[in-house]
Amino acid sequence: MLQISDFARKLSVGSGIGELMMDLGTGLEEARRTGKEISMLGGGNPAHIPELDRLFHERWQDLSKTPDKIASVLGDYTSPQGSDEFREILAVSLSSKLSYPFSKDHFAITQGSQTAFFLLFNSFAGLTSPTNPNKASKGKIQKILLPLVPEYIGYSDQGIFENMFTSLPPKVETTGQNRFRYMVDLDRFVDRLVQGDIGAVCLSRPTNPTGNVLPWKTIETIHKTTQAMNIPLIIDNAYGYPFPNILFQEPEIVWKPGMIHVLSLSKLGLPGTRTGIVIADPAIARIIGEMSAILNLAGGNLGTAMVGDWIQSGEIYRISDEIIRPYFKNQSSIVQSMIDDAWKDKLEYVIHDSLGALFLWLRFPGHKKSCRQIYESAKAQGVFVISGENFFPGLDENFCHQKECIRLTYSRNLSEVSRGIAILTEILT
Amino acid sequence: MLQISDFARKLSVGSGIGELMMDLGTGLEEARRTGKEISMLGGGNPAHIPELDRLFHERWQDLSKTPDKIASVLGDYTSPQGSDEFREILAVSLSSKLSYPFSKDHFAITQGSQTAFFLLFNSFAGLTSPTNPNKASKGKIQKILLPLVPEYIGYSDQGIFENMFTSLPPKVETTGQNRFRYMVDLDRFVDRLVQGDIGAVCLSRPTNPTGNVLPWKTIETIHKTTQAMNIPLIIDNAYGYPFPNILFQEPEIVWKPGMIHVLSLSKLGLPGTRTGIVIADPAIARIIGEMSAILNLAGGNLGTAMVGDWIQSGEIYRISDEIIRPYFKNQSSIVQSMIDDAWKDKLEYVIHDSLGALFLWLRFPGHKKSCRQIYESAKAQGVFVISGENFFPGLDENFCHQKECIRLTYSRNLSEVSRGIAILTEILT
Repeated sequence: MLQISDFARKLSVGSGIGELMMDLGTGLEEARRTGKEISMLGGGNPAHIPELDRLFHERWQDLSKTPDKIASVLGDYTSPQGSDEFREILAVSLSSKLSYPFSKDHFAITQGSQTAFFLLFNSFAGLTSPTNPNKASKGKIQKILLPLVPEYIGYSDQGIFENMFTSLPPKVETTGQNRFRYMVDLDRFVDRLVQGDIGAVCLSRPTNPTGNVLPWKTIETIHKTTQAMNIPLIIDNAYGYPFPNILFQEPEIVWKPGMIHVLSLSKLGLPGTRTGIVIADPAIARIIGEMSAILNLAGGNLGTAMVGDWIQSGEIYRISDEIIRPYFKNQSSIVQSMIDDAWKDKLEYVIHDSLGALFLWLRFPGHKKSCRQIYESAKAQGVFVISGENFFPGLDENFCHQKECIRLTYSRNLSEVSRGIAILTEILT
Repeated sequence: MLQISDFARKLSVGSGIGELMMDLGTGLEEARRTGKEISMLGGGNPAHIPELDRLFHERWQDLSKTPDKIASVLGDYTSPQGSDEFREILAVSLSSKLSYPFSKDHFAITQGSQTAFFLLFNSFAGLTSPTNPNKASKGKIQKILLPLVPEYIGYSDQGIFENMFTSLPPKVETTGQNRFRYMVDLDRFVDRLVQGDIGAVCLSRPTNPTGNVLPWKTIETIHKTTQAMNIPLIIDNAYGYPFPNILFQEPEIVWKPGMIHVLSLSKLGLPGTRTGIVIADPAIARIIGEMSAILNLAGGNLGTAMVGDWIQSGEIYRISDEIIRPYFKNQSSIVQSMIDDAWKDKLEYVIHDSLGALFLWLRFPGHKKSCRQIYESAKAQGVFVISGENFFPGLDENFCHQKECIRLTYSRNLSEVSRGIAILTEILT
């Protein structure tokens, strides 16, 4: 075998997100080809909501009426930070939504939010040498602090150096019968932050995988602390406000200097366009643009062409509020009922409060099968979920939830979900 | 200012490709908005060939007749290595073109070839620890060897470690009046390769920036040497055979184990889709797919949707051979005549033989202005070219061409090129 670098070995050997995307891509493709029945409850592929697919199709047809526009979408590179025109539309539209007077310089467009996180994490973690080379101080290793795990599986392997993350277990609150919620342990958070090796703090809100939406008051406390230490707070807002707004309560969110919000078009229903949006202080947005030039030359044009006019007209907010949010809210409540009906009195289980995003986070306290075994058994029967142990990057203490949880995507059609739950029931009881 | 990592500093501070893409993106956009006249002879934005734009537009409309296809292009993630369906089409079609019985496992689709090179370079260069941790031997630093510079500007800053490249100056041959050509110094190449620190060899063919097409015999000699040492040979084929086939002579190219070919849809006229194609031994293609999952989750779907049917039917080869190649061949010869008419007897200059790609590489031997000064003066008058010193990554010896050359893109409309040459003439004479 060829000699590959440590970088390649680290980024290619058995990552959780790699497994997930393989399951998703090859699973779906095989099913499409062979007609085999599967339940794809693993990946975060958003639902195909018929009304939305129709709107996307209309928009595709509208674009085709302006051949010049098509020629430019297909045939022109944009500036690596994203086109000025699109970023100006964002600035105007998001200033009112996020209560901050943005200019286009606050924005950088990336090839999906996954790429944005790769760039952000490796910009604030890893070896950091003093900017003034005359200084006697040597370089240090910075880390990304996740104030609460479980956290998004796709972060885990993004470090070009080992051990990029350090994280804290949550406080666990019972919120009802078979229901619970995670909260940040703010005392431990502050204690960890002040140790001096943290380059940035990151959390997803709504949280992937749990469907949690941390109280804005908690975010404000975290932000005050990070601001005092001149450390950016990254909020992964891929499912959140103002689009696609898969939030089942009031959003309560603003942007402030020192924050980095990351938005995505994927959960709006456009993952095939690979479009991420970083909202940050201009110096950081510029760095993301410069790094994008080296990595990608420029972003793809399809996503911004699809939604540019919609953001300008506000149509994107109507779509989010009137089509996307109600769809998923309804879906979440139906699937929770399915689960309660199937498992109540048969099985020990708890579901994390579903406050947003596309997932249910299920815990089976003390079950004799580990979540990895549950994942394998389900997959063997064509039911794809994600095993919980993948969602604890950087945690260096034992926390029993690591072996007892699975993430289940409820975004797909109900017969597929129902079949999946039936098979899980067989495996678990 | 925030503490950013060495990685971010390296990837964001004043890269040549960053400057180029900024010139390209903001220059074009500003011109579009203000109506200011510019000559964009810097970036590699392919020409908008009207017949091609019409075909792309028709294809866009055709796709819109199948709403299911549109829904999938926009709304589904593909497998990180690229969809099985598309890779199978590639395998069938390219097996005859490149004289090798490919399977889909030889292919990985990336978000443009720039991303492919980032992944490939950092996979074969940088810190490489022994795979067997019981071995006493320590890790070593591997490098990418460029057998001939000038070489593509976009490689320069892609290393996540410093000093990723080592390179060799070319042999220079006079080929006619005001014409010359670079060739690989094979003796020096072998001497350098056997020193034991090379992880991969890379060259572009047709060469960006010179328009050179190295003789296939030279490639075969290089490949034999790399094979003997179990080192991959990466051939950047973004402009080459079988598409877009911007080659002004017989292509003479095959794929063999140990080679990595990188193709792109950009120079076919689809840079806005960000689609790169890696052809490699299956173990390497798989690694690229796994790394893509972590960096990007998946590739965009637009490019493969645009050309999938065209590759299957062979239409893409007709487009390349009957529309793209003749267009650029004609353009190259007209622009060379313009230059000869303007400069002959007025100015000391030589043009590298134009055998393919979109560029002319111009040298001004002993000119009192450095190429950097020429670039700055031209840019001030709205003429964008690229200064030659950016094209010598990894060269640690003096070579006078570094300060005496510019790259000029001839792909844009002739009035734009003509205006650019007129302004260059003023600056140079």
